[in-house]
Amino acid sequence: MQLSGIIAYPVTPFHSGNGEINLAALTQSLEHLIEQDCDAIAPLGSTGESAYLSLAEWMNVAECSVKTVNKRLPVIIGISELTTSAAIVKAKYAERIGADAIMVIPVSYWKLTDSEIQAYYQAIADSTSLPIMVYNNPGTSGVDMSPELIVKMAAEIDNVCMVKESSGDIQRMHKIFSLSQGKLPFYNGCNPLALEALCAGASGWCTAAPNLLGKHPKALYQAVRCGELEKARQHFYQQLPLLHYIVAGGLPKTIKAGLSLLGIDAGIPRQPLQEASAEDKAKLGEYMAAVQ
Amino acid sequence: MQLSGIIAYPVTPFHSGNGEINLAALTQSLEHLIEQDCDAIAPLGSTGESAYLSLAEWMNVAECSVKTVNKRLPVIIGISELTTSAAIVKAKYAERIGADAIMVIPVSYWKLTDSEIQAYYQAIADSTSLPIMVYNNPGTSGVDMSPELIVKMAAEIDNVCMVKESSGDIQRMHKIFSLSQGKLPFYNGCNPLALEALCAGASGWCTAAPNLLGKHPKALYQAVRCGELEKARQHFYQQLPLLHYIVAGGLPKTIKAGLSLLGIDAGIPRQPLQEASAEDKAKLGEYMAAVQ
Amino acid sequence: MQLSGIIAYPVTPFHSGNGEINLAALTQSLEHLIEQDCDAIAPLGSTGESAYLSLAEWMNVAECSVKTVNKRLPVIIGISELTTSAAIVKAKYAERIGADAIMVIPVSYWKLTDSEIQAYYQAIADSTSLPIMVYNNPGTSGVDMSPELIVKMAAEIDNVCMVKESSGDIQRMHKIFSLSQGKLPFYNGCNPLALEALCAGASGWCTAAPNLLGKHPKALYQAVRCGELEKARQHFYQQLPLLHYIVAGGLPKTIKAGLSLLGIDAGIPRQPLQEASAEDKAKLGEYMAAVQ
Amino acid sequence: MQLSGIIAYPVTPFHSGNGEINLAALTQSLEHLIEQDCDAIAPLGSTGESAYLSLAEWMNVAECSVKTVNKRLPVIIGISELTTSAAIVKAKYAERIGADAIMVIPVSYWKLTDSEIQAYYQAIADSTSLPIMVYNNPGTSGVDMSPELIVKMAAEIDNVCMVKESSGDIQRMHKIFSLSQGKLPFYNGCNPLALEALCAGASGWCTAAPNLLGKHPKALYQAVRCGELEKARQHFYQQLPLLHYIVAGGLPKTIKAGLSLLGIDAGIPRQPLQEASAEDKAKLGEYMAAVQ
Repeated sequence: MQLSGIIAYPVTPFHSGNGEINLAALTQSLEHLIEQDCDAIAPLGSTGESAYLSLAEWMNVAECSVKTVNKRLPVIIGISELTTSAAIVKAKYAERIGADAIMVIPVSYWKLTDSEIQAYYQAIADSTSLPIMVYNNPGTSGVDMSPELIVKMAAEIDNVCMVKESSGDIQRMHKIFSLSQGKLPFYNGCNPLALEALCAGASGWCTAAPNLLGKHPKALYQAVRCGELEKARQHFYQQLPLLHYIVAGGLPKTIKAGLSLLGIDAGIPRQPLQEASAEDKAKLGEYMAAVQ
Repeated sequence: MQLSGIIAYPVTPFHSGNGEINLAALTQSLEHLIEQDCDAIAPLGSTGESAYLSLAEWMNVAECSVKTVNKRLPVIIGISELTTSAAIVKAKYAERIGADAIMVIPVSYWKLTDSEIQAYYQAIADSTSLPIMVYNNPGTSGVDMSPELIVKMAAEIDNVCMVKESSGDIQRMHKIFSLSQGKLPFYNGCNPLALEALCAGASGWCTAAPNLLGKHPKALYQAVRCGELEKARQHFYQQLPLLHYIVAGGLPKTIKAGLSLLGIDAGIPRQPLQEASAEDKAKLGEYMAAVQ
Repeated sequence: MQLSGIIAYPVTPFHSGNGEINLAALTQSLEHLIEQDCDAIAPLGSTGESAYLSLAEWMNVAECSVKTVNKRLPVIIGISELTTSAAIVKAKYAERIGADAIMVIPVSYWKLTDSEIQAYYQAIADSTSLPIMVYNNPGTSGVDMSPELIVKMAAEIDNVCMVKESSGDIQRMHKIFSLSQGKLPFYNGCNPLALEALCAGASGWCTAAPNLLGKHPKALYQAVRCGELEKARQHFYQQLPLLHYIVAGGLPKTIKAGLSLLGIDAGIPRQPLQEASAEDKAKLGEYMAAVQ
Repeated sequence: MQLSGIIAYPVTPFHSGNGEINLAALTQSLEHLIEQDCDAIAPLGSTGESAYLSLAEWMNVAECSVKTVNKRLPVIIGISELTTSAAIVKAKYAERIGADAIMVIPVSYWKLTDSEIQAYYQAIADSTSLPIMVYNNPGTSGVDMSPELIVKMAAEIDNVCMVKESSGDIQRMHKIFSLSQGKLPFYNGCNPLALEALCAGASGWCTAAPNLLGKHPKALYQAVRCGELEKARQHFYQQLPLLHYIVAGGLPKTIKAGLSLLGIDAGIPRQPLQEASAEDKAKLGEYMAAVQ
């Protein structure tokens, strides 16, 4: 498996009334992403409020996503669990329903040692034959995995074969590239770093932006691939205000608000997360309109 | 309710074989704490691996704790949940089984705004008549509540009436004291800050240390209360190496290891957390022995 | 030499017109400090804009200070220099004019290794027989000396025998105390930490506060010494708003503004530092008035 | 004046015996840089130990540099002074001797407000007609200027017209680009960020690397300019270990050590800075050899 390009992150829509999963809206939002020329779909990531769902809800969303995408694109299912055993349950389920890969982020309450993190990935890898994308996002998960640890795990654990780096530190990507002699594919998970990560050799960009920006993220990716840097910069600086805004406001909140502006009713995030304010929505509309 | 003194944190023991809750060992460890002259018992805190338990396990531990303590001391039950609805389920349960108070820490994946945090506490407070201790521990929970927010919530939400401050920043305690004109009781949750927090006006010390140090933490508390600073310093500097060690190693891991040295078999922490190494145990034994 | 109590920091007054040193105002401000029952005087510290003066100016202030104090109290002269050779020139001068000790802070442009810092202190110590107070204030100097390094230097360099800790981290003081078995005298250099530092065993409090608060800082010191913690807290929380304010605004700026409210015209700080605004002065006046 | 490309930073050589300025070695090292196809020469920057020199020494180095370069390339003279008046003295001198521009970094002991920083630049700008490059390097200077402040100063102060950004945060460059609508030229001052800064639109790269790497930095610059990203990455990842090494070790120390390996005797840095160890030199030699 060699992913490249735009890996798109759908939200998990909830019904406005009772807060339950809205599968119809999920299907709609998945079709919307597929139309944007994305290269893979990654449900149940940070944007998908993976950590806020019950196990049954998570399974529902995973299954509906795999069925909806229906092999048109690779599907990477996100797993973010505090305990090893809970993560394994999900990894097995993802394989059973026909996902193409899993993206795994260790979540911490008590800080984890490198040995604990590696054992966590090893145990999950032992439970499934799916390829595993290591997902480093210390800002949300509380776990910060060094490039050294990530490259070591990729070398020592069979199905660990990709990295999503969301720390926002480009030097981490340099280190992953250098330590693995350019062999370990890494993906940018920090939206406002998209231009530089791709220039530094990222295989792709993991992002929820196509939900709101359509094919523009893909156009940025392609401009970099073609060495058209002037054009790439134009795309990037045009998208940057929105990229900053959706990250600063929290992706579930801002992406759901933006989708509603596009006519997709994905509801609001699960409490304690609150919905975007009217001001936030107006600002978001401006930023979306500015990227024509 | 006006707590003061030593608020002791038990671990949640697991059976070595199957990893299930060990209620016999829990009872044993609760009795052990009560014997140490503590002033309150706080099960299911960070030390109690609250966040790692299933709901059924959490309920089991809560109920067993309340029954075991049996009104000999106040019991404060810890709640650390990502979603508001899950926290409410636990708050109601704590009241139903006769707990004296709850200690609530908001856990984040996506960062919470002050408004989201306050709504979280308000919703929980609306669901119970128990007194609520606000628990600020950004290092584990990913949520950092400012003194301003904490004092505001205590003023505006009826049963929010105590604060456990574990950020390790003594200036936060100054701020809580100043903003509330000394009216809002705060408790030290950072072990290596115990001496200073008590000198600065903390009503008590929330700590797992009595598990391993017996009545020594209480002696430190009392020396400060009596203005015997020379004696308080002696107690503090004697306990400090162990206090640092248990915090640095992670409380579930180190307290369980220390209890085994005292003959209480509380098992090991839940994966991905690993048990203390033989070296760690040896070191721990030395530090415990040094506090005679 | 065993200093204890309040070590007071005078400003370096400038003439309003030409910005030159105002020795008359310096003398006046030194007399003012001596009247406040301080235990030592430390000219040319951070408050004294030591780093902003020409060598000739520095010498002038040093000499005038020693003469004015005239053995009524110990005088500790501050040295903050980027190069070793410039620091040695000042150390020798301080000895020649009869200072009782020097307080030395290494200033960095390029970060210094521990080895470079120790060689810096060693070279200075070799040039003088005066006792040396190591001054750690990473926020201003850009050099952060660990407790381990400080205690090592005190053990290995003959006249290094005192520490002023201004990092604001009480754990540093714990570490100095523990590593030196309570033998190395340390002094609090972070005003809003005064209560806790003294409780933790600091020998004294290095502060510019007596310029504006008269004998109140000394009263806080004595309450702690007598174990009167309730009284100490009253003193501390009463002084705390002003202590925060003078630190946040920068000591030369705020202390000079406060002195002008007391009728001592010490001028304004040297550019690029600007004088306190009218609003700042008004606020400062309020805080000073609140400490009666 | 519109600089682009490689702006090269010479060291300030000292005689091994007495530590005095070695003008012959300075001339030799300037010629060495000019041969490397650099686009401008910037004496007396951080690499040039500007902050460690006496005024007379600084003047000597400035004058010798301008004369040696002799209009073959633009010469940008570095100024890093704690006081406004000292910076003005140097700015006037740079103009008098025929420098093409000055690069000014405000150095702090007491933190500066934005208003103080702007007044500092304004006062210097008023004293000279030379173009001014704002130099932001919080790690060495202790002053961190926000993109907002920098763009504001460029808009409001006539001869402020370029920015060297050395914070290492690519988002700062995005912000400068966005706030100035791409009009304010910015230059990368963080060596391990060279690839990304140039991709993001930096006009050039301010670096001491050509001292040790010859024409390789220029080749990286040109590959980016031509949109040859694969080639640019090859250049960058090849140079990266050395770029990290010289930054981590401190530029004066490592560049002087590397020059000695190339047969240029620039002496060692001024104390308290120490010379590179034998091990460091060996490692440096390996990194230099790896970039053929």
